[in-house]
Amino acid sequence: MPGTGLRVLITGADGFVGQGLVAALARPGMAAALLGAPLDVLLLADRTAGRMPAGLPARWKAGDLADPAYLASLTEDPLDLVFHLASLPGAAAEGQPELGAAVNLVASQHLALRLARQAREGGPVARVVFASSIAVLGRLGSDPVGDAHPPAPTLSYGAQKWMTEILLADLTRRGEVDAISLRLPGIVARPPGAGGFGSAFMSEIFHAARARTAYRCPVSPGATAWWMSRPTCVAALAHAARLDPARLPSGRSLLLPAFHAPVGAVIEALGAALGSEAVAGINFAPDAAIEALFGRLPPLVAERARAAGFQGDETAGQLVARCLADLDG
Amino acid sequence: MPGTGLRVLITGADGFVGQGLVAALARPGMAAALLGAPLDVLLLADRTAGRMPAGLPARWKAGDLADPAYLASLTEDPLDLVFHLASLPGAAAEGQPELGAAVNLVASQHLALRLARQAREGGPVARVVFASSIAVLGRLGSDPVGDAHPPAPTLSYGAQKWMTEILLADLTRRGEVDAISLRLPGIVARPPGAGGFGSAFMSEIFHAARARTAYRCPVSPGATAWWMSRPTCVAALAHAARLDPARLPSGRSLLLPAFHAPVGAVIEALGAALGSEAVAGINFAPDAAIEALFGRLPPLVAERARAAGFQGDETAGQLVARCLADLDG
Repeated sequence: MPGTGLRVLITGADGFVGQGLVAALARPGMAAALLGAPLDVLLLADRTAGRMPAGLPARWKAGDLADPAYLASLTEDPLDLVFHLASLPGAAAEGQPELGAAVNLVASQHLALRLARQAREGGPVARVVFASSIAVLGRLGSDPVGDAHPPAPTLSYGAQKWMTEILLADLTRRGEVDAISLRLPGIVARPPGAGGFGSAFMSEIFHAARARTAYRCPVSPGATAWWMSRPTCVAALAHAARLDPARLPSGRSLLLPAFHAPVGAVIEALGAALGSEAVAGINFAPDAAIEALFGRLPPLVAERARAAGFQGDETAGQLVARCLADLDG
Repeated sequence: MPGTGLRVLITGADGFVGQGLVAALARPGMAAALLGAPLDVLLLADRTAGRMPAGLPARWKAGDLADPAYLASLTEDPLDLVFHLASLPGAAAEGQPELGAAVNLVASQHLALRLARQAREGGPVARVVFASSIAVLGRLGSDPVGDAHPPAPTLSYGAQKWMTEILLADLTRRGEVDAISLRLPGIVARPPGAGGFGSAFMSEIFHAARARTAYRCPVSPGATAWWMSRPTCVAALAHAARLDPARLPSGRSLLLPAFHAPVGAVIEALGAALGSEAVAGINFAPDAAIEALFGRLPPLVAERARAAGFQGDETAGQLVARCLADLDG
């Protein structure tokens, strides 16, 4: 007899966000609380197996999402819930177009189409929580941006995320999956030296402050970004997993309530938390291209997400406190 | 030594629009006039080989676009120009989701990504003329619709066309293809009994009038549609093939200047051309679903396309005359 609990797949489970999600689920009693139902199966997918979380019905399955046989093996057994987090990030996808298309586009589509087939063949209609990106929006002006803002991606990564959103929305319309695409902002603090992210400075300032080292920040102190701590991101993913579809907009794509602030304000909050000498080594050497892409974000109006119960980091102090606690693990 | 002429691929070359395009190219002297340069190679692709056009350097290559090996064979040699017309139409794709995704989405992407690779490997940057569809727009209100109208497809076919537009626009931004997506309206008059088109009534009235037979039209006489004769569509495809990229909008998707008119007006023009007794057998049994999807199209403002030199059928009489001449072909 099948259990009554959830059969869950996490792709990109050993990535920055995936590790945070797995760790949150592994806290005693938290899996059922976060997902709204007990966990029967937790399939963890990534290129290499990560740490085995204690106390969870977890299994690592390592492989390359661009390999159709591997992808098929992930969807062999019925799935109720899929966190699709795997991707090749922006700058890396821009520089390796074949790999970017294979991972961000083709693999995402194969996964979505296989889940749709599962439903057509009488299996469950899987809730899919897709880690999309604000990169779908492209270059923004100075006016506040909301969910109605038309996407116009300026990176292949953004175009690939957008196309996946459209496919998931169409399969949702067909009743074959039940998807939510979260347009994630810059999640911090990523591990130091993580490649492929033009927005890496958003995390590097945390590491510089904690280590009290020098850091040349490639944007000016006034550069505004959309920030979200990893714990807040993980809470949003879990909220999306258990959310009543009636609370979701028909397009199923959501901007999250990221924290809109200049880099300088976050550095100031780091100084307040760690002592002003901790951030004394941070100086600024703005790169026009990085500043234009990641440092001129206008105010964000995430009304739909707030109405659906998603929360953000509401102050620089809260953002910094959550990130530091997360880094201290 | 390579020739100085164009190496051209037409997918869906044996479909309704494809046959019209091949026939137009085969008229003496017309290939160079329509494409703006002499034709060196014309590769014609479809599931089965069609008629061999006289006087052209043409070769049929039959196969299934969903077969990667076949698709690879089409892009083995360098291509300067691709008319990507092949697709599984709306109702058929909605009813056969695996096949629809394979043809309209996956095959289109493989083709686009292979052409991009051709450019990265030092080959030509191919002009791609993609037969997209007004199905990307989804249900429309009564306000006039222009190029800025945000897509919200209500059929998988429309979602698949839209995703392909986004990929082609991104590869164009990268400089790896040079694409134009034409959002085609209902092209008439398709062969009688063609399956898979909810909009088949737009063609069936022509066949009923020519044959002086009875026809139950599934929309009311007041149902408004966007019409385009096949000769006008073929002229638009050729115009797109030779158009200076500087005359194209950055998104590279265009609504064409289709003729906006009620079914009754087209039937009246058919009566004027063929005699009122020719249309006496046409009666109306409106189907709410078909009327809602294909019979409530608002006025169309195709400013960008007109500015770029695209033309439409400007009156019901012109539409009917061109379709009848085409059918008498």
